[in-house]
Amino acid sequence: MNDEPEVAVLRLGHRPGRDDRMTTHVGLTARALGADRVVFGPKASGSADTVRDITDRFGGPFGVEVTDAPKATISEWTGPVVHLTMYGLPIQNVQGDLRASLEAGEPVLFVVGAEKVSFDVYERADYNVAVTNQPHSEVASLAVTLDRLFDGAELDREWVGADREVIPMETGKRVVEP
Amino acid sequence: MNDEPEVAVLRLGHRPGRDDRMTTHVGLTARALGADRVVFGPKASGSADTVRDITDRFGGPFGVEVTDAPKATISEWTGPVVHLTMYGLPIQNVQGDLRASLEAGEPVLFVVGAEKVSFDVYERADYNVAVTNQPHSEVASLAVTLDRLFDGAELDREWVGADREVIPMETGKRVVEP
Repeated sequence: MNDEPEVAVLRLGHRPGRDDRMTTHVGLTARALGADRVVFGPKASGSADTVRDITDRFGGPFGVEVTDAPKATISEWTGPVVHLTMYGLPIQNVQGDLRASLEAGEPVLFVVGAEKVSFDVYERADYNVAVTNQPHSEVASLAVTLDRLFDGAELDREWVGADREVIPMETGKRVVEP
Repeated sequence: MNDEPEVAVLRLGHRPGRDDRMTTHVGLTARALGADRVVFGPKASGSADTVRDITDRFGGPFGVEVTDAPKATISEWTGPVVHLTMYGLPIQNVQGDLRASLEAGEPVLFVVGAEKVSFDVYERADYNVAVTNQPHSEVASLAVTLDRLFDGAELDREWVGADREVIPMETGKRVVEP
């Protein structure tokens, strides 16, 4: 979140059609919950466009990238690589290490798979992390992980360059120009 | 989570095809992160089947219901009704009230919309709650909300009647018969 080392999210694997909304939700969740950038694979340019559009309207800074070589993003990453998987170690046991990495100035990359993730990602990851060892949703896992990493500070993030802002309301909807 | 008053999740609105995976992920996230039951509308029986199948294999107790009258679930609910919406009040300001309701023995119903939610739901809800006022994902909002409601206790939940169990691993996958 701006003043810290970069937190990025890589969406690995994307089946056009079937994964469109999940991939878009991964990107929007990364943006809303404090990551600095999302990286999509080559087939997810539609999701990238949607997340860019939301950033244009609701503010940033937030980076959206499409890469032909998502695995290079992993292999070239200089800080901890965290693969979210239901087979991994409990997030509650790992979150302290991840916070310490950020505090030490190391950028953190979260890898969120769509289709089956190949074994080399498990091996390359510094942490394979599970938000419960139950099957549920990569979007849910990413959300809980980011909320725990930032300890709720991401909920108070300020947005720059928005042309609309939602004002919290007990009932109803209020949207203003900031 | 078993010894507390019921926490249920109602998925309101479902467009077959377009919403299938999101609706399934709402149900699986509800199950994995400590809710006791999910209620789907009449068009989401496919998602209901998937969540039931996961519960059969990975354990429960967890209730899966399909109703013809989802709004009756709201109007007849005896405890707080919490509508998750990006237009609502910050979760960090409401979570204390929700925990107090559970501690007072009141069941809590979370309402998660797919398509546009009609205004009567905003009015009937005791709380309209936002996990940030940014557009992202109802699955992410539900996940963060449940994790905060249960203060992480849901991550240590025990499962009953599972025929498979994932053992947390630093690298790789391990699944056993419990």
